[in-house]
Amino acid sequence: MMNNKVVLAFSGGLDTSYCVKYLKHDKNLEVHSAIVNTGGFSPEELQEIETKAFNLGVSSHIALEETDNYYQKIIKYLIFGNVLKNNTYPLSVSAERIYQAIALAEYAQEVGASYIAHGSTGAGNDQVRFDLVFQLIAPEIKIITPIRDQQLSRQAEIEYLAKHGVNIDWKKAQYSINKGLWGTSIGGAETLTSHAPLPEEAYPSPLVETTPKQIALTFENGELVGLDDDNLAPVEAIQKLESIASKYAIGRDMHIGDTIIGIKGRVGFEAAAASIIIKAHHTLEKHTLSKWQQHWKQQLGDWYGMFIHESQYFEPVMRNIEGFLQDSQKTVSGKVFVELLPYRFIVQGIDSPYDLMKSGFADYGEINKQWTGDDVKGFTKILANPMKIFKHVNDKVNSELQNSDTYD
Amino acid sequence: MMNNKVVLAFSGGLDTSYCVKYLKHDKNLEVHSAIVNTGGFSPEELQEIETKAFNLGVSSHIALEETDNYYQKIIKYLIFGNVLKNNTYPLSVSAERIYQAIALAEYAQEVGASYIAHGSTGAGNDQVRFDLVFQLIAPEIKIITPIRDQQLSRQAEIEYLAKHGVNIDWKKAQYSINKGLWGTSIGGAETLTSHAPLPEEAYPSPLVETTPKQIALTFENGELVGLDDDNLAPVEAIQKLESIASKYAIGRDMHIGDTIIGIKGRVGFEAAAASIIIKAHHTLEKHTLSKWQQHWKQQLGDWYGMFIHESQYFEPVMRNIEGFLQDSQKTVSGKVFVELLPYRFIVQGIDSPYDLMKSGFADYGEINKQWTGDDVKGFTKILANPMKIFKHVNDKVNSELQNSDTYD
Amino acid sequence: MMNNKVVLAFSGGLDTSYCVKYLKHDKNLEVHSAIVNTGGFSPEELQEIETKAFNLGVSSHIALEETDNYYQKIIKYLIFGNVLKNNTYPLSVSAERIYQAIALAEYAQEVGASYIAHGSTGAGNDQVRFDLVFQLIAPEIKIITPIRDQQLSRQAEIEYLAKHGVNIDWKKAQYSINKGLWGTSIGGAETLTSHAPLPEEAYPSPLVETTPKQIALTFENGELVGLDDDNLAPVEAIQKLESIASKYAIGRDMHIGDTIIGIKGRVGFEAAAASIIIKAHHTLEKHTLSKWQQHWKQQLGDWYGMFIHESQYFEPVMRNIEGFLQDSQKTVSGKVFVELLPYRFIVQGIDSPYDLMKSGFADYGEINKQWTGDDVKGFTKILANPMKIFKHVNDKVNSELQNSDTYD
Amino acid sequence: MMNNKVVLAFSGGLDTSYCVKYLKHDKNLEVHSAIVNTGGFSPEELQEIETKAFNLGVSSHIALEETDNYYQKIIKYLIFGNVLKNNTYPLSVSAERIYQAIALAEYAQEVGASYIAHGSTGAGNDQVRFDLVFQLIAPEIKIITPIRDQQLSRQAEIEYLAKHGVNIDWKKAQYSINKGLWGTSIGGAETLTSHAPLPEEAYPSPLVETTPKQIALTFENGELVGLDDDNLAPVEAIQKLESIASKYAIGRDMHIGDTIIGIKGRVGFEAAAASIIIKAHHTLEKHTLSKWQQHWKQQLGDWYGMFIHESQYFEPVMRNIEGFLQDSQKTVSGKVFVELLPYRFIVQGIDSPYDLMKSGFADYGEINKQWTGDDVKGFTKILANPMKIFKHVNDKVNSELQNSDTYD
Repeated sequence: MMNNKVVLAFSGGLDTSYCVKYLKHDKNLEVHSAIVNTGGFSPEELQEIETKAFNLGVSSHIALEETDNYYQKIIKYLIFGNVLKNNTYPLSVSAERIYQAIALAEYAQEVGASYIAHGSTGAGNDQVRFDLVFQLIAPEIKIITPIRDQQLSRQAEIEYLAKHGVNIDWKKAQYSINKGLWGTSIGGAETLTSHAPLPEEAYPSPLVETTPKQIALTFENGELVGLDDDNLAPVEAIQKLESIASKYAIGRDMHIGDTIIGIKGRVGFEAAAASIIIKAHHTLEKHTLSKWQQHWKQQLGDWYGMFIHESQYFEPVMRNIEGFLQDSQKTVSGKVFVELLPYRFIVQGIDSPYDLMKSGFADYGEINKQWTGDDVKGFTKILANPMKIFKHVNDKVNSELQNSDTYD
Repeated sequence: MMNNKVVLAFSGGLDTSYCVKYLKHDKNLEVHSAIVNTGGFSPEELQEIETKAFNLGVSSHIALEETDNYYQKIIKYLIFGNVLKNNTYPLSVSAERIYQAIALAEYAQEVGASYIAHGSTGAGNDQVRFDLVFQLIAPEIKIITPIRDQQLSRQAEIEYLAKHGVNIDWKKAQYSINKGLWGTSIGGAETLTSHAPLPEEAYPSPLVETTPKQIALTFENGELVGLDDDNLAPVEAIQKLESIASKYAIGRDMHIGDTIIGIKGRVGFEAAAASIIIKAHHTLEKHTLSKWQQHWKQQLGDWYGMFIHESQYFEPVMRNIEGFLQDSQKTVSGKVFVELLPYRFIVQGIDSPYDLMKSGFADYGEINKQWTGDDVKGFTKILANPMKIFKHVNDKVNSELQNSDTYD
Repeated sequence: MMNNKVVLAFSGGLDTSYCVKYLKHDKNLEVHSAIVNTGGFSPEELQEIETKAFNLGVSSHIALEETDNYYQKIIKYLIFGNVLKNNTYPLSVSAERIYQAIALAEYAQEVGASYIAHGSTGAGNDQVRFDLVFQLIAPEIKIITPIRDQQLSRQAEIEYLAKHGVNIDWKKAQYSINKGLWGTSIGGAETLTSHAPLPEEAYPSPLVETTPKQIALTFENGELVGLDDDNLAPVEAIQKLESIASKYAIGRDMHIGDTIIGIKGRVGFEAAAASIIIKAHHTLEKHTLSKWQQHWKQQLGDWYGMFIHESQYFEPVMRNIEGFLQDSQKTVSGKVFVELLPYRFIVQGIDSPYDLMKSGFADYGEINKQWTGDDVKGFTKILANPMKIFKHVNDKVNSELQNSDTYD
Repeated sequence: MMNNKVVLAFSGGLDTSYCVKYLKHDKNLEVHSAIVNTGGFSPEELQEIETKAFNLGVSSHIALEETDNYYQKIIKYLIFGNVLKNNTYPLSVSAERIYQAIALAEYAQEVGASYIAHGSTGAGNDQVRFDLVFQLIAPEIKIITPIRDQQLSRQAEIEYLAKHGVNIDWKKAQYSINKGLWGTSIGGAETLTSHAPLPEEAYPSPLVETTPKQIALTFENGELVGLDDDNLAPVEAIQKLESIASKYAIGRDMHIGDTIIGIKGRVGFEAAAASIIIKAHHTLEKHTLSKWQQHWKQQLGDWYGMFIHESQYFEPVMRNIEGFLQDSQKTVSGKVFVELLPYRFIVQGIDSPYDLMKSGFADYGEINKQWTGDDVKGFTKILANPMKIFKHVNDKVNSELQNSDTYD
């Protein structure tokens, strides 16, 4: 039996504020607003959003604290897989949207809502992520998407709100910012072009620190568990590293990618911690994993990232890939030394008991006791076999073809 | 019939100087020294090496100018494939070694030599590259490798040379430097460890320019054919970009990789032009190629890079991959705007008639006339189908399993 | 400006007969029926369909003869790629549906129709294939899909036709058969289950020949150009082989696959010529291509088949893959000897100047002059290096961990 | 400290009989012969081999019973991965050679031998498999390979044995047969050619049963655990199925493959149980796994098979792949119905609670309540987006290029 409860994904912005009023007044629903924190909000920001929600007249509001779950369910595997979409973007927003959708759907089920609403437009990825995850987790709950369905202008939304007594000064921010545990995305006039870079002031984290700084990252089975001499839980370690490294304005770049609905988009981002952790983790793997482990991890990691981006988190193969990635991390433990500098960082080196480079068995550049020059000659001779045979056979055919031409 | 001519790959260093004397005096061969320029040597450096060769008593010396061929046969495809080995290294040395070996083997055939010699040790990749390519191109010519076979100490080589009247002050350079068209590799005490970075002074190109500079790269079918307003041949464009960008100390990093003989090695590099060109080219592709073109290019490009690195240049699949990569570049034309800054660069954006982001058909972030919100709802519903079915079936099985447990 | 012309994909069955009347009477359109022959229809069958069309009152009817184009544009690459979907199914129907859609859309443009109609239901792959190709080729033409939109029962369609004076005895065939150049699909009561095989009588080609027969297939650059001593055009060769081999009831199996809309389906098929040609071609490649050519051909061929199946024929990567596959066929020439037997065939062997097995250089099982036992020992030693190092390092770590446990 | 114990891989054939005498008399070693049973030998055959060994004068002989271990360590994963090398060969011999080498090396360590010997020649794969595995497991034990090193003719070996009092009638079998749990390989005069098939009499299992027979295979998490109504351990089930199906002469084919040392080889095989199990298992997966699980399983399964074949069993990535494959089998349970017929079999269908085709949610061919025709229209429209954009942009560029040509 349907009730009139709706859970609304609420951010405090114009679109979702409009949704509160619209759902309440035009649809006669009891609005329960919810925001999912996956690491992007401070307690103060969450409090501010809650106040906004109640001012708009919601029946209840909740901030779902999901940072740890988000790390355990998704971020961990993005690190294991060294996932940088198109070689650049750590999936700062894509990944957290999936997890937010999961938390919202589960919350809607918990409170027994008949409806769930989100404020995505019809132009981007998020509508697909929300719709798809909602349908999977809670097929019994009806999805409402006022913004996509009505395609109102900003002005029309402001007027509707004013008509319902909401007279906030809805200044349009110059840049649309999405902040999370794994980085911050930045959209603006420039990102709608193909040629223009974001100006310095578009980045939320300005350069405030210029003195180079050494920092050691400790990994255990692929997870970041320490900074310098501090043992930390992974989420804590990520957040602490972000607070240190973002002062150096590290990890800025532009992502140009294919959206789920098949058009290309461009978005700026800053992701100091994510950028450093992935490169540090990858470097540790270069020392501790075999060539073919690295090869297959890259294939599977890239696929995992693509499917996270495209809201295919629940495709069953994702669980199998997670199994592979987890299994591959058994030897990915040790310290990685990083130097922070203005706008950049250097991975200086690593120290690990699993380091295959300092094996004490056969080390690069040393005259070696495990094999002789003759062994390598034999190796090379055999290695050349298929190419020699191919050349031999095909040279013969070609020369016969040529000869036969002569007599034609 | 065997003659006593040997072609020796000669660099002017201690090892190959030793080889001249050894081949001449101990093996009674007529030594024809050769050096292959793949873009790393200035005319002055080549002259200096020639003088050294004649001073050591070679019968002839030649500098084989192969920069253009090297670009056409290998570098071009490394750009098409955005090849960065292990996500970092543009294969600065690996690629040119292959091409040098080809040129040397062909030269040895041309002069009718019965022998061909190189000075590689038994510890690294180069021995395999030289041996393998020599065997393939010139199976009739016998390979001699004095350094690998004799494993003499530096001191023993110096003494042998002194005994034969060569009294040069063989100061061991602190860093072993290999310079080519596609970058410079740097080995030293630090690269033999896993933890230590190279110091500033190890890099041949110090920071000498700090004023930010805008530069536009023009690509045509994937090849760099212009800088700002100048039309240039690709090799010229690479060299000019290198001369500009290396002043900013751009493109430094460390490569940790698996050698052909199965041990891990670490080497520093600086590759200003290669780093910029690959990232600029890749960005242009993100705008002009489809999602799946990019996907498959990455698979094939990575494989191409691995096989170049591992001296499998003549594996027949390499020609097929080159065909694929070439074919994929039909729409990779346009300008890429880059800003050069100390130690780093920013790819700011692109301009291309093939830009799929500014299609005039459906653009990111705009309310769209090509489809409706309902179309996306339908899309998402169908996209969710396999996951819904999987969940439905498996939830049913699991709940039945649970129920049956209850009654056991 | 819209006119009232509609091009209808017409097969002569109940659904598309209903469409003729519906489009004409309920929609007041001028119906131009068309059928695309991609090798599945005899002249008699095409004549019969034409008569049916005119009897139903179409304004014009055409049989588009596209067998050669279909071969050149798609089948050729399915052979080059050894495409067997899920290791079994030669894509008999999927591939031809794409090509039929292309021909229909081009025909609709040619006659200047404002509408194009097909009779697919809402349950399968074909609706997506037709819609998608029509939109791409002819975005200006509106698509009409009466069967999908109205979801009428068989009986309702029959009654509607009767009301419009069409009184045919629409006996429902026990099996729905789709015949084309590349095989015949068979649907029926059994294929709607997961457990039941098709009975013998469901297969259109019964066993009528039991005497074993030897036949030689001649391939040139991957294309079938001869049978025994006859030189034939590829389409002719395929059709002749089909007529011979189908008498042996060869090439029957069941395809279980994922539809484009995400549900699983099951369909029987018989494809004598396709099955033989692909296995024969693949065998020839095993002799004439290198290991890694085969490896990458399989990756790309499988992907090509999946994208054909899923109507992604126009994804730009498909052209790049076709380039790769074509390029790989340079040495795929020679004869393949096949024995036909009741319900099965044996690929007996091949004869090719490009045969890498009989290289005259190094042949399997012979004591070899190109390398020594010591060369293989050296090869194996070096090949073992990375695994030795991994074991050495990890055994050491594990033993230290164990020792440290002892003292806890 | 070295002792004079040698463990010899002994098969009872001419080569390894020669090895016993040679090691004992020429090398003064104490010969401990061993044979590893991975399912290919009956107790009688093992007894016969033991008698031969003692007659030749070995100090001890052992038959290492490893069939179960072999199944658990390797065969299981070949089934999970549906491994058919080059689409044909179940790796009957390759896989067991690896496991035999492991068992021999461990036995040699157990008895404290200083040497380990095998009778492989210098032409094939087995020398690499034995050498490589021995080095990895027991680097402290020296490997002796008399046959490879001495390259004696058959006659010379017979004479040497006669000189040492062994006067057996060493009739050369017309076909060299290798039998194991996972199939039997057959070499002979024909397999040394590229064109000739093996004659009927070359196959050890003649056709002795022609009455068609239905059999149901029960899989649990990917493992064969029952035939018809019998619950069986997997090894038992394989062996029972082999005994039933081999009477139908099922599973014969020819493998043409690339050897580890780079030359191509050809070998016949019969593998009734392996052929049936892999196709049955694969069919069950088509019903119970998602599209992308199947996609990645094929990539990883093929690689796993290649690495088993090429003796890379100990590459660390193999453990990660095994983890993935195991994880993917959670829903691969159910019955598969197979019909056995002379020389062939038919997989008729499956029955499984995990069957995604009979989901009760959305079934193929049915008018569906989960989505509408409009949903599929929307889906197809969005699916077409990237191709539409690509076409739109590139058509525009091409038409501009053409126009600009006009004015040239």
